[in-house]
Amino acid sequence: MQQNSLTVDGARFWSTIDASAELGKGPRGGLRRLALDESDGEMRRLFIRWCEEAGAKVSVDRLGNIFARREGAEDLPPVLIGSHLDTQASGGRFDGIVGVLAGLEVLRSLEDRGIETRRPIEVVDWTNEEGARFQPPMLCSAVFAGKVSEDWALARTDDAGITLADALAEVGFAGSAPVGGREIDSYFELHIEQGPALAAKGLPVGLVVGSYASMGMRIEITGDTGHAGPTPMAERKDAIFGASLIAVGVNEMGRRFAPEGKATAPRIEAWPNKPGIISERATLYVDFRHPEPEATQAMAREVEVLVAEAASKAQVEVEIAERWEFGGVDFSAELLTLLREQAGELGIGTLDLLSQAGHDAYNMALIAPTALVFTPCDGGLSHNERENTRLEDQLPGINLLLNAVVGRANR
Amino acid sequence: MQQNSLTVDGARFWSTIDASAELGKGPRGGLRRLALDESDGEMRRLFIRWCEEAGAKVSVDRLGNIFARREGAEDLPPVLIGSHLDTQASGGRFDGIVGVLAGLEVLRSLEDRGIETRRPIEVVDWTNEEGARFQPPMLCSAVFAGKVSEDWALARTDDAGITLADALAEVGFAGSAPVGGREIDSYFELHIEQGPALAAKGLPVGLVVGSYASMGMRIEITGDTGHAGPTPMAERKDAIFGASLIAVGVNEMGRRFAPEGKATAPRIEAWPNKPGIISERATLYVDFRHPEPEATQAMAREVEVLVAEAASKAQVEVEIAERWEFGGVDFSAELLTLLREQAGELGIGTLDLLSQAGHDAYNMALIAPTALVFTPCDGGLSHNERENTRLEDQLPGINLLLNAVVGRANR
Repeated sequence: MQQNSLTVDGARFWSTIDASAELGKGPRGGLRRLALDESDGEMRRLFIRWCEEAGAKVSVDRLGNIFARREGAEDLPPVLIGSHLDTQASGGRFDGIVGVLAGLEVLRSLEDRGIETRRPIEVVDWTNEEGARFQPPMLCSAVFAGKVSEDWALARTDDAGITLADALAEVGFAGSAPVGGREIDSYFELHIEQGPALAAKGLPVGLVVGSYASMGMRIEITGDTGHAGPTPMAERKDAIFGASLIAVGVNEMGRRFAPEGKATAPRIEAWPNKPGIISERATLYVDFRHPEPEATQAMAREVEVLVAEAASKAQVEVEIAERWEFGGVDFSAELLTLLREQAGELGIGTLDLLSQAGHDAYNMALIAPTALVFTPCDGGLSHNERENTRLEDQLPGINLLLNAVVGRANR
Repeated sequence: MQQNSLTVDGARFWSTIDASAELGKGPRGGLRRLALDESDGEMRRLFIRWCEEAGAKVSVDRLGNIFARREGAEDLPPVLIGSHLDTQASGGRFDGIVGVLAGLEVLRSLEDRGIETRRPIEVVDWTNEEGARFQPPMLCSAVFAGKVSEDWALARTDDAGITLADALAEVGFAGSAPVGGREIDSYFELHIEQGPALAAKGLPVGLVVGSYASMGMRIEITGDTGHAGPTPMAERKDAIFGASLIAVGVNEMGRRFAPEGKATAPRIEAWPNKPGIISERATLYVDFRHPEPEATQAMAREVEVLVAEAASKAQVEVEIAERWEFGGVDFSAELLTLLREQAGELGIGTLDLLSQAGHDAYNMALIAPTALVFTPCDGGLSHNERENTRLEDQLPGINLLLNAVVGRANR
C-alpha cells in the first residue's frame, strides 16, 4: 500500500453493521426491515446520530432520503456515496447496509484525520430501495434523478393500502428538503455482489462495468368464478390455472436462457382464492434479465407468447398491465479509471463485472458520473436471512471507496 | 296433481329469497355473506323471526346451528329439513339459501292449514357450510353427525386468525343447545344442482342417487429465498415455481379425466411473495372428483407423482400436509322411493343424478336416512354472483319436498 493511501477503521465499521443487525431482526439471523417501518425508523435515527457525531450536517428530503453532508473547502457540487438501509421481508444484514455504513465510515475516517476535501462529500440513505414494501424498487432515487414524479411516488401504496406519504409521516421522515434538482459531482455505491463471482475467484472487489438488461411485468389474469366441483373442465375460466401456466413457462424460459439469463415469477395473488371455488382473478409478477439486451427482448417476446397461450388454454383474459425495465446503465469510464488506479495503489485485486440486480446507482447514472463497486458475499446468497460475509472481505472495497472518493473530491 | 297433494305459497317463498338477497350484497348482484359475518348475523336473526312467526320453536346449538321445530302429535325423532344461509366470497343468491327457505315455507304451509303431523318437523341452518371463511366446509353438520369433535371445530380459524368460537360469540350465535347427540328420523335437503343437467334436459327435479368421490389436499412447498436477479437458475429453490407446476399438472389431469372427472387448484399462497425475491414457501390447495371411486384414487396417485416431479424440478420440498375426502354417500333408498312416489302424484318429472359438490346431507347420511333433491340453476353456474334461477324452476322441487316431508312425518 502506498504511504499516502488512507484506511478506514474496520472494527468501528463492523460495530455499525452489528448495531444495524439488531434493528428489525428476522427469525433466522437476518433482517426484516421494510422501508419506513418501525425498525427502519430506529435505524434511520441511529444513522443520523452517527452522522452528526461524525460532524456531518444531516438533511431529510420530502421522500425521506437522508443526506449527511461533510462540507468541502469550496462550495462545489458534492461527491455522493449512497445505498439503502431497508431490507427485504426475509433479507440479510449486508444488502444495501454495507454501502451506507461504508459511506459513514468514510466520513468518520476523514473526520479522524481532520482532512478537508475540495468538494463536499455526502452520504445518502435512499428510501425504499428494495421494493419489498412499495413498488417499484429504487423508488426514491428514481425521483431524485427525475425519472418519475414526486407526487407519483408519494401516492404509491403498500399491501395494506398505506401510501408512501402516510408511511413517511407516520415514521417521522417526511422531510422538508426538495427531492433532487441540484447538481451532483459524482455518485459512488458500494454493494455486496449478490452473485458468486468474487467469492469463486477469491477477489475482494468487483468493478461494475455494465448491467444486465432487466425487464419486469405485472400480468393481470381475469376468468370467472365457478364451483370447483360440478363446473365442467371445458367451461372453466380459471385465473389460477392461467397464472400458473405463465409462471411455469417463465421459469422454464429462464432455464433455457441460463446460465446468462434469469427469469422469475416472484409474486402470485388470486381472488377469491378459496377452497371450493374457481378463482376469478390473479395477478402475477414476472421478471427476466440477460447481459445482452437483444436476449432480454427475445425473452419479452417469449413471455408475450406464453401469455397468449395461457389465455387460450385457461380460457381467461390476460393483460400485461404494467411493464418496467432497468439496466443498460452507462457507468462512468472516468470513475472506473480512478477506481482502477486506486486499487492498483492499494494492491487490491479487482474483477470487472456486470450488475444483475437493480441498484440506486442505476438511477444516479442518469444525472451524474456513477460508479458501482461490489464486495463479496458467501455463495452469492442474498435476499435471504443467511446472507453472510466478514469484515476482512469488505475491508478492501471500503478502503478503495475511501481513497477513490477523496481522490474525486480533491479533483 | 292429486287432490290430497299440498302446495306451498310460491310468492311468499320468493319474497324470502328476495329479502335474503339484500343481506350481504355482492358488487355484481350476488352475495358475499361469509359464515358468521355481520350480514350472516342479520340473515340468521331474520330467519329466526320468520320461523317464530310460523309457530316454530327455535333453538341454537353451541356451533350456531339454528333449529326451528314444529311439534308433532307424538314425541318422536323429527324429520329434519336443512341447508345453509352462508355463501362464498363471490357467491349467488340461491346456493344453500333455497334449501333453508324451502324448509321455512314447508313450516308456513303446514301452519296455514293447521296440519298436525305425527312426527315433529325441524328446519336447520347449518353454520359454515361453504368453507369460505373456516376450513373445512360443512364443518358444523360434521360435528352434529359425530364426524369431528366440537372442540376441534371451535378452534378452526379464519384468514384473520379469528376462531370459530370467537366468531360465534361476536355475532351472538354461540348457543347453548348440545350439538347432535339426539335421534333424527330422516334428513331432507333441497339444493340447486350447481350443474347443467336439469336445465339441459328441461326437468325440474333431480333425485340424488349417489355422489362423486371427492378428495382434497393441502400441499406445502418449501424452498429458499434468493435474489430474483443474480441467483443462478440451477441453484434456485423457488416455491412459487413448485406450486405452479403442481397447479398446472392438476388442471391438465382434470382435462384428461373429463368430462366425468374434475380437478382444481383453487387456492395458492406464497411467502414472501414480493417482487425481487424468490419465494421460500407456498401453500397450494387441490381437489379432484370423479363418479368412480377408483378413478378418484387414480387421480390421487397422479397428484402424488406430480408432487414428486415438482419437488425435483423446482428443487423444493413438497409435503401433502393434509388430505380430506368426501362423497361415497349412501342416500336412503326408502326416501328415494317416497320421493319418486310423490313426484309421480304431483306429475313432476325427475332425473336421477350424482352430486358433484359436497353438501351437509353427506354428513347427515352418516346418522339418518337422508335424501338430497336438486333444483335447476341457469347453465349450472354456481359460486358466482351471476348464479340464477326463477320461482317457476324451484316450485316443483319445493312442492315435492313439502309432500315428501309430510308423508315421512306421518309414517
